Amino acid sequence: MIFIGIHTFFTSLNDLERIIRCPGRFKFEEHNVAAHSWKVSQYAMFFATLEERAGNKINWKSLYEKTINHDFAEVFIGDIKTPVKHASVELKQMLAHVEEKMMEKFIIEEIPEDLQHIFFERMKEGKDGTTEGRLLEFADKLDQFYESFAELKRGNTDTEFVYMYQTALSKLLLIDLPTSVHYFRNEILADAVAEKTVIDIAELTENILQQHTD
Amino acid sequence: MIFIGIHTFFTSLNDLERIIRCPGRFKFEEHNVAAHSWKVSQYAMFFATLEERAGNKINWKSLYEKTINHDFAEVFIGDIKTPVKHASVELKQMLAHVEEKMMEKFIIEEIPEDLQHIFFERMKEGKDGTTEGRLLEFADKLDQFYESFAELKRGNTDTEFVYMYQTALSKLLLIDLPTSVHYFRNEILADAVAEKTVIDIAELTENILQQHTD
Amino acid sequence: MIFIGIHTFFTSLNDLERIIRCPGRFKFEEHNVAAHSWKVSQYAMFFATLEERAGNKINWKSLYEKTINHDFAEVFIGDIKTPVKHASVELKQMLAHVEEKMMEKFIIEEIPEDLQHIFFERMKEGKDGTTEGRLLEFADKLDQFYESFAELKRGNTDTEFVYMYQTALSKLLLIDLPTSVHYFRNEILADAVAEKTVIDIAELTENILQQHTD
Amino acid sequence: MIFIGIHTFFTSLNDLERIIRCPGRFKFEEHNVAAHSWKVSQYAMFFATLEERAGNKINWKSLYEKTINHDFAEVFIGDIKTPVKHASVELKQMLAHVEEKMMEKFIIEEIPEDLQHIFFERMKEGKDGTTEGRLLEFADKLDQFYESFAELKRGNTDTEFVYMYQTALSKLLLIDLPTSVHYFRNEILADAVAEKTVIDIAELTENILQQHTD
Amino acid sequence: MIFIGIHTFFTSLNDLERIIRCPGRFKFEEHNVAAHSWKVSQYAMFFATLEERAGNKINWKSLYEKTINHDFAEVFIGDIKTPVKHASVELKQMLAHVEEKMMEKFIIEEIPEDLQHIFFERMKEGKDGTTEGRLLEFADKLDQFYESFAELKRGNTDTEFVYMYQTALSKLLLIDLPTSVHYFRNEILADAVAEKTVIDIAELTENILQQHTD
Amino acid sequence: MIFIGIHTFFTSLNDLERIIRCPGRFKFEEHNVAAHSWKVSQYAMFFATLEERAGNKINWKSLYEKTINHDFAEVFIGDIKTPVKHASVELKQMLAHVEEKMMEKFIIEEIPEDLQHIFFERMKEGKDGTTEGRLLEFADKLDQFYESFAELKRGNTDTEFVYMYQTALSKLLLIDLPTSVHYFRNEILADAVAEKTVIDIAELTENILQQHTD
Repeated sequence: MIFIGIHTFFTSLNDLERIIRCPGRFKFEEHNVAAHSWKVSQYAMFFATLEERAGNKINWKSLYEKTINHDFAEVFIGDIKTPVKHASVELKQMLAHVEEKMMEKFIIEEIPEDLQHIFFERMKEGKDGTTEGRLLEFADKLDQFYESFAELKRGNTDTEFVYMYQTALSKLLLIDLPTSVHYFRNEILADAVAEKTVIDIAELTENILQQHTD
Repeated sequence: MIFIGIHTFFTSLNDLERIIRCPGRFKFEEHNVAAHSWKVSQYAMFFATLEERAGNKINWKSLYEKTINHDFAEVFIGDIKTPVKHASVELKQMLAHVEEKMMEKFIIEEIPEDLQHIFFERMKEGKDGTTEGRLLEFADKLDQFYESFAELKRGNTDTEFVYMYQTALSKLLLIDLPTSVHYFRNEILADAVAEKTVIDIAELTENILQQHTD
Repeated sequence: MIFIGIHTFFTSLNDLERIIRCPGRFKFEEHNVAAHSWKVSQYAMFFATLEERAGNKINWKSLYEKTINHDFAEVFIGDIKTPVKHASVELKQMLAHVEEKMMEKFIIEEIPEDLQHIFFERMKEGKDGTTEGRLLEFADKLDQFYESFAELKRGNTDTEFVYMYQTALSKLLLIDLPTSVHYFRNEILADAVAEKTVIDIAELTENILQQHTD
Repeated sequence: MIFIGIHTFFTSLNDLERIIRCPGRFKFEEHNVAAHSWKVSQYAMFFATLEERAGNKINWKSLYEKTINHDFAEVFIGDIKTPVKHASVELKQMLAHVEEKMMEKFIIEEIPEDLQHIFFERMKEGKDGTTEGRLLEFADKLDQFYESFAELKRGNTDTEFVYMYQTALSKLLLIDLPTSVHYFRNEILADAVAEKTVIDIAELTENILQQHTD
Repeated sequence: MIFIGIHTFFTSLNDLERIIRCPGRFKFEEHNVAAHSWKVSQYAMFFATLEERAGNKINWKSLYEKTINHDFAEVFIGDIKTPVKHASVELKQMLAHVEEKMMEKFIIEEIPEDLQHIFFERMKEGKDGTTEGRLLEFADKLDQFYESFAELKRGNTDTEFVYMYQTALSKLLLIDLPTSVHYFRNEILADAVAEKTVIDIAELTENILQQHTD
Repeated sequence: MIFIGIHTFFTSLNDLERIIRCPGRFKFEEHNVAAHSWKVSQYAMFFATLEERAGNKINWKSLYEKTINHDFAEVFIGDIKTPVKHASVELKQMLAHVEEKMMEKFIIEEIPEDLQHIFFERMKEGKDGTTEGRLLEFADKLDQFYESFAELKRGNTDTEFVYMYQTALSKLLLIDLPTSVHYFRNEILADAVAEKTVIDIAELTENILQQHTD
């Protein structure tokens, strides 16, 4: 028997609780894609609040849609190992294309016809140039920052996490959301590097900061 | 050293990945509060979409806030075992009071003063009489429905999950969101009970449905 | 169907294997309440042996009852997160009251009537002023000492465990069991701090010892 | 550096939290030796209470010692796989001899000399012909009964657990503690077999009971 | 610092212990790619022994190489979710191409130059038309047979595993190794379907067998 | 019902996925016997390739058999805790004898008669004086080297792993395979000690190397 419909969609949400981020790497703590998506939606709401206070207009419905759906496509292909992601532009494009085709197939087969256009809109790549797209990008990178920070803090010496920490930090500082970047750099990062850690995160951080004057 | 600020708030989100729902009960699959919150935000978005199509006005910012924050207080007290929750009205109120006091203390100690009023608003009980409050209630119950459904389906014979399934289903059918209830009953439930299951869920469901004529 | 009787009590023992201590905190190793209770019963037997050799009378039946039952009430409410425990005297009392009420309800509903008075006696708070009550307090704190010691030793930098280590150590040194405290301080602690550790436990220990001259 | 002393003994208790019972077999739920020892100490206290009410004299200190220490030797050799245990009388004796030698070595190397005679007494085989020895035997078998019951109840079809269930039940019924056996058979077993189970435990039980008229 | 050399290759073997097969699906028991590869090497050795007795020549070095290396490429891309694998011929080819490029990059970057030709030979697709290639195909499918068999046996009702069981069985019966297929069908399958199972595997099996007369 | 035959043998391979190496010790990462066997078969193939290039003749079928079967006997007795293994020559011999008897019993009861002589040959102790026997010894020690290396690297301060690391390294350097030892010492070890580690492995290594001039 083949199930078609929203029940299949809701059941697939549970599948994302079983997709572990950074598969194959040693981690002191594992994170699943469902929990990651929730943390991203929390970070995004906080920084959107700051941006709104600074005078930017926030489309809250769009931010809500973008953050909770941004990794749904991993239900098809999993969290591809990072080395693959960074392998080459061509490989990255091929994988993005595979994900897109799988998503298309899923929506056509599982979502009732009158709702399909909503799902096509909601499930497309969210990291566009809008304020909400940039907030998604910022929040997603911030979770990479926190995941790698926690591993380094506890003594995970795998170079993968040093690389992930420095890359996430560098990218965060360059995102075009001056209010958020400033708050992150001056409030959050200051507290983070003051923590006692097994690996010297303060030094790793300093190296990156020197390349990005505020 | 004492950390005060948003870094502490963001770190506490990670704590909710370690709070397991229904602690102490045997389960084939465990769910953490972070992943649960994400699923609730997904269900709520879907049913809000249906309600909007049916002519109801949705405050998307409010729904976003309510769903992602509704179990944040569990960071203080954990997911209290169900028997306690149902023990007596008095005990339930006492626990709610403890949670409220802890939240107040957290906001005053950790959140910068100029943001405190926003957090007080955002972290208060979300299940009020608004459309968004009812959608939160609906989505939260739906996750109990799905969690217990999955356990029964795989042969978890603990009476706790039979009780959770029947209670969640009964409550879902009574929530004052006619469009959502109708869609759940006629589209989703029909697909769910058609699944092959170890325990006879179709029969459990039929018993409840007979008490709730559409 | 409702089960009443000792079968329900025995089954609930298994539930305590699923209650994890310090829920929500990152730990390199988790401990459940059942295993903790066993370690407490082992420590207590050892120190009771020392106390008996030093001329104190031990009621072994009482010590046996107190140690194996001291956390049974967590079957109802779980291991409340430490921040809650330390929140305020009022909150702590409210939670103790909830636990007491749940225990009362359980005994009346599940334990055959002719055995109820035995269970009421056995399940009441064990940390009274008797030698056995003090041995329970000592053994329970010693397990906190060992749990936090093991986390610090392996590089868990969360301040929670530094605090737990120092608090447990301070309290151990003040318990009114001079023979046990002396043996712990001079034999056990000396061996413990001589271990190679990632975090400098010897220094943390020295800070506490200086406040407690023997 | 070599540690000698009670600190090493206390640390080894933690090791027993990592020794899993029935290694190598598929189980829906794992149990460690520490938690098992605690459950055995609970069952034994309950049945000793019944026996005392029936007029038998209980040496509570002995029962306490026997129950909490009965599997300590597994810290050396682990929980040997069941097929080995049942392989032959000769092999079983050889393994018992290995355990005994390891225990002797441990006590001589780790326990301070003036306490060694107490540990030699406490750590010897506890299942002797005394009332307390028989209560230990009864409680240990009862935990096998409950462990296999829980697996069968949830649909673990491995013949190992059918065999464990039937063997534990048969042995329980034959232990020379008429009051305890009678209570188990008439109160506990009746409740147990009334539970809803995936595998038909009631029938398995009936087969055994017919061979053991009360 | 960048490591180049066999140390990196050996370390990457450990990564395969963290790649879980069938990611995202609910399973009662998880299997990693390292353990799977070992089981495949065991099955292959057994059937190669039968084939050799039946007069076929076996290149043991080739069989050894093929079986232990056949899933090494998953170190780069993980175990892609099954729905993707079966999505379309085009997508499957794209993914195979990604894996091939990653492997090439790895060998050129990590393996000393004088050993590269050996690794290129060893790591290429092993399921060719040779006897050893067919034995690898047979052994790989047999592990899918056993993995899905074990899930169905314990009551995993997810249709994914019914599909995996029937597909693996159908393919096994069609592989061009008459001696092995005959032995599997008449000796192994007969024993397997005689086991007590929660889901009726005997019936599922019968349906497939009727389509494949010996 | 009793199953006799290859189906039982194949099912027992799955059991080895549940036997954890070094039971009872704290580890940041657990390894099962199946995955270990696969890594050993990989290391052995690599060094056999080096030895063949250096002019030694390799019996690839024998190496394949030896590596994948060398720990199969742990299906009966588990991975005996290391302290037992090193307890005394007499105890070690007794345990080896138990394993041998169990293996004999298994082959006679489970393996069809016409295949028994093959299994007796394949399952006997593989670490003999042949080149393949020495390669097995080398590869098995290398996995101990890597397992303990990974624990030390991440900050596992248990003396057990320092001891395992130094013992494995010492033994590796003494195995009579000059080409392999030379390659390990000059290529692999050099890369390994250059890694960033929480515990100073470079120093531990230097201490051993000074006792073994090349």
